[in-house]
Amino acid sequence: MMKTLVGKRSAGKKVSGKIVKSLIIAALSAGGVVSAQADYKSEYYSQAVHGPYQLYKIGDFALEDGGTIRDLQLAYTTHGKLNRAKDNAILICTWYSGTTKFWEQNYIGKGRALDPDKYFIILINQIGNGLSSSPHNTPGTGGMAKFPHVRISDDVRAQYKLITEKWGIKELALVVGGSMGAEQTWEWAVRYPDMVKRAAPIAGTARTTPQCAAFSRTLDEARQSDPGFNGGNYKSNTDVQAGLRREAALWTVFGWAPEWLKQEKWRTLGFSSLEDFQTNFMDAYFVPMDPNDLMNNAWKWQRADVGRQTGGDLAAALGRIKAKVFVMPIATDHLFPVADCAAEQKLTPNSELRVINSLAGHLGLFGVDGKAYFDQVDLHLKELLNSPV
Amino acid sequence: MMKTLVGKRSAGKKVSGKIVKSLIIAALSAGGVVSAQADYKSEYYSQAVHGPYQLYKIGDFALEDGGTIRDLQLAYTTHGKLNRAKDNAILICTWYSGTTKFWEQNYIGKGRALDPDKYFIILINQIGNGLSSSPHNTPGTGGMAKFPHVRISDDVRAQYKLITEKWGIKELALVVGGSMGAEQTWEWAVRYPDMVKRAAPIAGTARTTPQCAAFSRTLDEARQSDPGFNGGNYKSNTDVQAGLRREAALWTVFGWAPEWLKQEKWRTLGFSSLEDFQTNFMDAYFVPMDPNDLMNNAWKWQRADVGRQTGGDLAAALGRIKAKVFVMPIATDHLFPVADCAAEQKLTPNSELRVINSLAGHLGLFGVDGKAYFDQVDLHLKELLNSPV
Repeated sequence: MMKTLVGKRSAGKKVSGKIVKSLIIAALSAGGVVSAQADYKSEYYSQAVHGPYQLYKIGDFALEDGGTIRDLQLAYTTHGKLNRAKDNAILICTWYSGTTKFWEQNYIGKGRALDPDKYFIILINQIGNGLSSSPHNTPGTGGMAKFPHVRISDDVRAQYKLITEKWGIKELALVVGGSMGAEQTWEWAVRYPDMVKRAAPIAGTARTTPQCAAFSRTLDEARQSDPGFNGGNYKSNTDVQAGLRREAALWTVFGWAPEWLKQEKWRTLGFSSLEDFQTNFMDAYFVPMDPNDLMNNAWKWQRADVGRQTGGDLAAALGRIKAKVFVMPIATDHLFPVADCAAEQKLTPNSELRVINSLAGHLGLFGVDGKAYFDQVDLHLKELLNSPV
Repeated sequence: MMKTLVGKRSAGKKVSGKIVKSLIIAALSAGGVVSAQADYKSEYYSQAVHGPYQLYKIGDFALEDGGTIRDLQLAYTTHGKLNRAKDNAILICTWYSGTTKFWEQNYIGKGRALDPDKYFIILINQIGNGLSSSPHNTPGTGGMAKFPHVRISDDVRAQYKLITEKWGIKELALVVGGSMGAEQTWEWAVRYPDMVKRAAPIAGTARTTPQCAAFSRTLDEARQSDPGFNGGNYKSNTDVQAGLRREAALWTVFGWAPEWLKQEKWRTLGFSSLEDFQTNFMDAYFVPMDPNDLMNNAWKWQRADVGRQTGGDLAAALGRIKAKVFVMPIATDHLFPVADCAAEQKLTPNSELRVINSLAGHLGLFGVDGKAYFDQVDLHLKELLNSPV
């Protein structure tokens, strides 16, 4: 289907269709319907679409905000081999709406910075992202709208259990992630300063800013205002399709930078008009997702703050970090602006600001600049990984 | 009511409550309910709230997009006196959601750049803004959701009729406006190059960018997705309150710059929390408005493009301008970024880029920086008005 979109009217250099295929998995699968019934096998959040991945049973897990997830399971995958010294592990954290699959397909590879030939690369799906324990896949009365509130700190504590218990790993050569993955990266560096040797938060802050949180709340309102959402008690994500499309429209405005849209850079992805791009990329990306899962992740995102570990003192929290940190904002990001990232970098002892040049804005994380983007990421990460700590 | 909001927790220097009062007129009036019935006297769009103003009867007015407004009336007001040479007239155009009142109260005054002692200042409400002919106040089957589509060019042609017919004015010393008012300013300068001697588009472009249009469409979706909107056939704006509040939330995210929200600058307006600011400022500003009126103005905004006069050629259109132009973007504006304004300025023969420093973002137009903002506006406008042409 994507091939037919690369019409004759397309202008601009075309980026590999791999990116589009990585993101619009649902359009390629059988409809991407997610059922609200706990016994239903989601076609979107499945091994077929996002796998292969493994599940690690954490057990009942008490959350910072007061709730408890029964039988918490983390979906994860690894690439490469843990060496004998157990000092070559890299952790990759996922972003809002994302799974580990996209990083596996686009951010790691032989000869790249995240090289499975050199490193034991662990990718863990954040709680509530649809693969790890999430509202839509949690059976019983604790699922769906009643799935408890999760904080970034809960994710990091659960990830710590998996990493230390399963492999006995005591240090991480690098923690890296984009957006909410960056928020988890910051939390890791502050919470486990002796364990995290290097950290690379890409396009994400240690504390969510008020504007970023306000944007995230407009996404909630887009979903909740759909009568089909029904207080989270829908029968299928397709009941909330209008709300999810509104969410996708908001992401178009806020996720992409003005100049990227002005230059019609979506043509490089094979789309013929902004409407085509909205319908067959943005909508196709969000519509198959589960609204309660997104609600859960948005709640978490709105409240990310490493300062919670130090009584609200952001400087004190960042001052704890022992890792070598490359703070990597995207130049045109309006959700996690360079200025906000730079301010946090200045509070972080052994750190550098490495701005990624891109016209794309926050969703530059999707790699829509192709090689120009990934080369920068790899350059910085290679230098960071080669830095003595 | 506003006074009680200035609690002890308020931090930061407080800007005059005049700004808040200027914008939140509805909260001070009796509920601000707007009826969909044509014979209803709106409490919000009224002489009591937005007056005094006059009405000029244009008569039946054929629109560029094909429709016709029956008995088009423009609501306008003037300050100062037209001199004998009829060369001291200044035209002020209004922005989306706005009326002439705010400019009367905050942008003009004795000793200011827009000085009624020196100039004959004409303020005209754009079509569809609630005071001039608009969906909600047009009787019969041509009102409400069936009010025809209006373009910026229609406004400017209608304003031209008023100005030339009523006063016999053949030249305008200055055309100025913010946001959609800037879009009208650009249209004036391109359409009537011999008449416009000076132009100052503030925080607005000659052609709406794709991102800006996409944002505007999310506002439409916020209103339309409210079941109370009912395809535009609501009985009262209060039926669409949830949608209007969603619109207000979107404006919080896009209208204010990240840093302004981060520094909690709303405290300077007398609000105690972001929630308080959202409810009692942003919501209070938008909720009394008429959804069909906003829909009409948003449609217009999404399609602003002076290049329509030259077969789509923006450079050719701007090249026509004979006026001395000061292009005045706000430094932190994400809706009409400096880069977009600068690109148009470069295409404009006798022009200069004058960036207004402000942390506030696009809604810096509301004057929330107080004197620091208005002093810059006045400085630039005075220099422009003193420039020989």
